[in-house]
Parts: sequence; structure tokens; C-alpha cells
Amino acid sequence: MTPIDLLLTDARLPDGRLTTIAVAGGRIVALDAPAEAVARERIHLGGDLVLPALIDGHMHLDKTLVGLPWIGHAAEPFRMSRIETDKRILPGLPLSTEQRAANLARLCVAQGTGHIRTHVDIDNEGRLAKLEGVCAARERLAGAVSMQIVAFPQSGVMRCPGVLDLLDAAMREGADLVGGIDPLEIDRDPKGQLDGIFAIADRHGRGLDIHLHEPGEMGLFNVQEICSRTRALGLQGKVTISHGFCLGGVAESKQQAAAELMGECGVALVTHGAASAPLPPIALLRRHGVTVFAGNDDVRDTWSPYGNADMLERISYIGWRADLRHDPMLHDILELATGAGAKALGLERYGLAVGNAADLVTLRAEGVPEAVGAHAPRRLVLHAGRVVARDGAYCGP
Amino acid sequence: MTPIDLLLTDARLPDGRLTTIAVAGGRIVALDAPAEAVARERIHLGGDLVLPALIDGHMHLDKTLVGLPWIGHAAEPFRMSRIETDKRILPGLPLSTEQRAANLARLCVAQGTGHIRTHVDIDNEGRLAKLEGVCAARERLAGAVSMQIVAFPQSGVMRCPGVLDLLDAAMREGADLVGGIDPLEIDRDPKGQLDGIFAIADRHGRGLDIHLHEPGEMGLFNVQEICSRTRALGLQGKVTISHGFCLGGVAESKQQAAAELMGECGVALVTHGAASAPLPPIALLRRHGVTVFAGNDDVRDTWSPYGNADMLERISYIGWRADLRHDPMLHDILELATGAGAKALGLERYGLAVGNAADLVTLRAEGVPEAVGAHAPRRLVLHAGRVVARDGAYCGP
Repeated sequence: MTPIDLLLTDARLPDGRLTTIAVAGGRIVALDAPAEAVARERIHLGGDLVLPALIDGHMHLDKTLVGLPWIGHAAEPFRMSRIETDKRILPGLPLSTEQRAANLARLCVAQGTGHIRTHVDIDNEGRLAKLEGVCAARERLAGAVSMQIVAFPQSGVMRCPGVLDLLDAAMREGADLVGGIDPLEIDRDPKGQLDGIFAIADRHGRGLDIHLHEPGEMGLFNVQEICSRTRALGLQGKVTISHGFCLGGVAESKQQAAAELMGECGVALVTHGAASAPLPPIALLRRHGVTVFAGNDDVRDTWSPYGNADMLERISYIGWRADLRHDPMLHDILELATGAGAKALGLERYGLAVGNAADLVTLRAEGVPEAVGAHAPRRLVLHAGRVVARDGAYCGP
Repeated sequence: MTPIDLLLTDARLPDGRLTTIAVAGGRIVALDAPAEAVARERIHLGGDLVLPALIDGHMHLDKTLVGLPWIGHAAEPFRMSRIETDKRILPGLPLSTEQRAANLARLCVAQGTGHIRTHVDIDNEGRLAKLEGVCAARERLAGAVSMQIVAFPQSGVMRCPGVLDLLDAAMREGADLVGGIDPLEIDRDPKGQLDGIFAIADRHGRGLDIHLHEPGEMGLFNVQEICSRTRALGLQGKVTISHGFCLGGVAESKQQAAAELMGECGVALVTHGAASAPLPPIALLRRHGVTVFAGNDDVRDTWSPYGNADMLERISYIGWRADLRHDPMLHDILELATGAGAKALGLERYGLAVGNAADLVTLRAEGVPEAVGAHAPRRLVLHAGRVVARDGAYCGP
């Protein structure tokens, strides 16, 4: 038998069992080890609940101001002003993209996040500079958190000639997915943008994650366009719609049709809870087989002064707003930040099972419903079997 | 000069100044004391922000399950089922109303809340029993938190003959305000309920706090009825509408008219952020002089599995959902849990000024915007100058 590196004793599993978890070589090697087994290190959890490390499926690490003195929100209350404000403020900050991205990623880890999908702005002004910064942060923190990067055309694609080439270059320089944004509202050319970004994804054999803030029927039009291209290119399971507020803002019959279409085409949805926009119908989408996952989106950045990177707080809010109260529904809500996120991100060896990565988080809770409802502070966070945060403080590499 | 009981050194005030706060006889006696002044006790805050103790303006202390092993949500997804479920579950619990109410109140204090307005069910089954329990909890915790009690006809008024008399009795037995609930949906007799509860308030010289979940125009009808009775009886400044989801669910012109009417009639609004219902237009209401304050509502109780009693987290969510991003707006959002709450509750000697009660909370934050945006854990909570919680743990009487 492999020598045990770490024993977590008096650990509560999501099914309620109190047990001892054994870790070796960065993996879970037993979920019911004898408490007296020989191990290099042992940590007594005192009955704390153990969950798989949380997944933050929608972040903007390149925009954060975490680590800087407070900077008040500076943009006018519309999206194009926020885009322009980014270009004015971000280049002059005293911390680099790498430093700021790493600061926020450490905050994520401290709250129990083990895997992040982050969008990174690709535009004609910054070109690939932010991607380089976030790639450097990803490398620096590889021992504490995994990152998946979306090459995100925040300023638009067709309205900014040259951006398609930059997105293509980004896919060679470390980005994992191709992004997109509001093909009607921002680009006013849905065919142009969607044909362009799907072609890049197809060429590189990668997936897409497309921001869709567009409301009502306008947004639904693009949901349909995204679904048809996903099916045509055989990209089922590799495409995500970010936000999809339109899904919450149309009649129930249209929600139903969109959910069916997304389910058939294997198009996922990631939500941060929709802020002032309508919340997509999470339970309906799940019933139609849509992978619904969650992300924090902006955390103390140029777009929003809100956020603390806590995924349990995030899904608690989403469940509360979605009116999901019964215990099985609270388990479903946890899925948004665990299993469904892992599926959308294509993570292998994820979850509380023997052979999977020992990426874990512990907190005071009797079970999953309480963990979601009260989201108590995190006690211990492990990545590949190593303790990377304790009592809300990052202590990883 | 009065001998100083406590000096809080290196304290950051909401305006950014670093200073020393002196406390004597339970009051703030200086906001700019010399750090070297003689005092019985001194606590170095290390630059932590000091806020006045938070105000939770809408609670249901009698329904909570805090302190019990987890009990899954048991009601069907409609309000009348929740009302019936309360009557089935609450009487059989192994902890009394007093014990459960005190457990939740301690959790509130641990999160920095110093003042609570709680609704307490008055109905033909329980009669005044829950009121007695919450009054006992109030007395027990008087050294840590103040409580204002609303005699709340959860099951209805006109549909439950005898409840008007019970509400009247509740006002003699310790309740501070008269409650009401959905005069159309629950009672189907708005004139009967509102005439009845306003008459009781008038007779006892007290205010009212009326639950209004009714949507759209149905709810607006009752906003108008409440406003007209408030004006007729001279109760301006003493009447609150709880929730008022209807205000978020009607056309902007009707929102505007309702805001004007509520402002003129001195009718306040308390919100918990509206969950799955539309959020009332907070900024519009404030512009029309309406006192808008906030409360957590259900915390791990028979109505909801969500909640941790944190008022900073609550208002952070409200501000995020209301799309309020700029620093002055974040100061306005803090008002929902401080100044506006104090005004609605009629608290005297509230706030960070010399002569006021030393009811304070501290946390790691550079200023008010960060305190709202990130709502870091609470460090220290004081009530009347005594430390009643430290690092999220209650340590009061």
C-alpha cells in the first residue's frame, strides 16, 4: 500500500457519515481509512464537513483591484462606459495584471475554490498583455488552484477589426476557450461574430464561453444561434453561455423551448445570480439536462465594488433568489459550484471519491443544506493533498 | 471629567480618520480622545473600521431553528402551507421559543447587530405564547441587543375571528407595534383588517409594521390604503411596509406615484432583498424621502433554510441587486442597516457621535464602501460600551 501522506480524521462526508479520509500522492486513497492508520501527517477535523474544492466558473481576474487601496467605481451606469473605463484605469495601476490576478486567486483559494474559469480581455489596445499576466499568475499558483482561461473580446469582435486574429493568437498563447460578447448589442453583427469565434474554436479543437447580457427576445435569438453552431460543429458539452439573462426575462413557454434546445445541443449556462437582471430558470434548465454552474464574476474590480470571492455565499444567494428551499434542492444548488462546474470545465478526477484529486474544503456544517444556507467560514483548503488555506487565510505556494 | 471605561485606539471612522474613541457609562464620550488617556481598559483596533451597531429591521425570532440539529424545509411551495407547517412543527421542538429566539439573537449580535425588530406570531392556536417567549429572550439578552416586537397576525386577521382581540392583548403584554399581513390575499377583506389593526395602534399610541407580499397592482392598492390611514391618524413616521414587492413589479410611473405617496405619508419600507420577487426601487423611494431600511427576515427557520444573520452581507446583496456601484451609493446602502433603521425603529442616541450609546461593531475595511462590498468578518461588537462578541463569537450576558 502507498504510504499515507495525510489523514483527515473525524471528517463528515456530504452523506453525513463521519469517517477518516486518507491522502497520498495528491489523491484521495481512502474515504473510510482506519483513524489509527500510519500517516506522515494527520489533521483532526472535529466533525467538520468536507466538500470537494469549489469551482468558480466565471471570473475576471484581469480586472480586479484586490490588493490595492480602495478605488471607487468610476464608470457611468452602462456597459460601454465600463469597457472604456477599464482601458483608462487598468494600465496605470501600480500592480501588474499578474499581481492583481494572483491576489484575487489567493482570495478564491482562501474561500475554498480550487478551480477557476476566468475571462481575460483581448482587445486592440492591450492585445495579449493581460493574457500573459494571467498565464503568469496561473503558473505561479499552480500548486493551489487550477485556472482555465477564456480569450474574451470584451470590447467586441466585428466592431474592432483585428480582434479575431488576436483571439486566434490567444489560443496559441495559453487561452483554453474562445470568448464572445453580445453579438447584437455590442457588435450589431451576430452572424459575423459567431461565425468568427466558432471558426477559431473549431480550428483549435477547443470550446467557447460567450457573455450574453442581451435581454428578452434579443438574447434568445443569440441563444438559438449559439445552439445551432454548437450542434453543427459537434461542440456539444464544450460551449457555455455566461449570464443568459434573457432566459429569465421571457414567457415560460419560451424559457421551456430554450431549455430544451440548450439541453439537446449540450450548451451550458453559468450564472452569478443575475444582479439587477432577471435570474435564468435554473431548475427548469437542469430538468432539461442543461449543465448549470456558477461563478462570482466581478470581485472588487473596475466593474463592481462588490464581492469577496466566496462561492458558497454566491450559490446561497442564487438558491435563495431561485426559491429553492428543500434539502434535495440545496444539494442541487451545491452542484452549481461543484459537480456541474467540473463537468462544464471538463475537470478530470474531481469529487469525493477514491482516486480523485485531494482538492478539498472543510467548514463547520452538519451537512450540505447547512453549508449552502449559512456558508460558514472555511476552515481548511487542500489542493492536491496540500493545505493551501487555513481559517480564511491563504498559505499556499 | 468622567473616568473613561474603555479606549478604542487606532480606530478608523467612516469618514476615514484614524482616531481614539473613548467610552464611559455606556456612551461615546469622545471620538478624538488622546491615545494615551487614562482608562480602565483599552483595545487596539489596528486600523479596523468602526461602525455603529447594525440594525436588523425585519426578523422572525420565534420561527428560527438555530441551535437545533438541521431540520429540512417541510412546507409546500406556497405561503399558506408555510403557515400551517409552523403550527405543526414549532410546538413540538425540543427548544422553547425563548431558547430559539435567544440563540438567533446571539448570532445576530455576533455579526454586529445591536438592534432588532422582530415579528412574533399571534394566532388563535398559540395566542400570546410566542410573545411571552420572545419577551423573555429580550429580557435575558438586554445587555447585548435591543429588541422591538411586532404583534404579527401571520395566519390572518379577519379570517381568524378573535385575532384582533389577541393583537390588542399583545400590545398590553410587551409588543411594541401592531402587525398586519396581505389584507387582500390572506384576509380577502382589506378594509376589515386595516381598519382593525390601525384602530389598535391608535388606541395604544403605537406604530404598525405590515407584511405586504401581494404583487403588482393588488399590492399597490394596499400601499394606498395604508398610506391614507397613516395620514388620517397622524401616524407619519410610525408605519412600515415590510417587503412591498409590488413596488418593484409595476410600471415606473406607478412606482413614482407610490414613492411620492409613501414619502408624503411618512410610511417606511423594510426589505430583505426580495428573494424571488421583484426588488422595490430603493433609490427612487429614498429620493422621495421614504425611509428604506433592511432586515434579514428568515434565518434557518421553518420558512427558509437560508441565512446567517449577517446584516452587512444582507445589504451587500441588496446594493448589488439594486445596481448601486458608486461610493456614495454604498454609503446610502449602509444607511439601510444603520441610520435609516434607527429612524424607523425610533432609536435614540444612535450613531457615531459623542453622547450616543457605545453600540459599535468593528471589521477589517478601509472604509464604508469596502465594508459593504466585502463584508469582512466582524472583529468586535460592543453594546452600551461592553464587549458582547469577539471574532464572530458571542460573549455577552
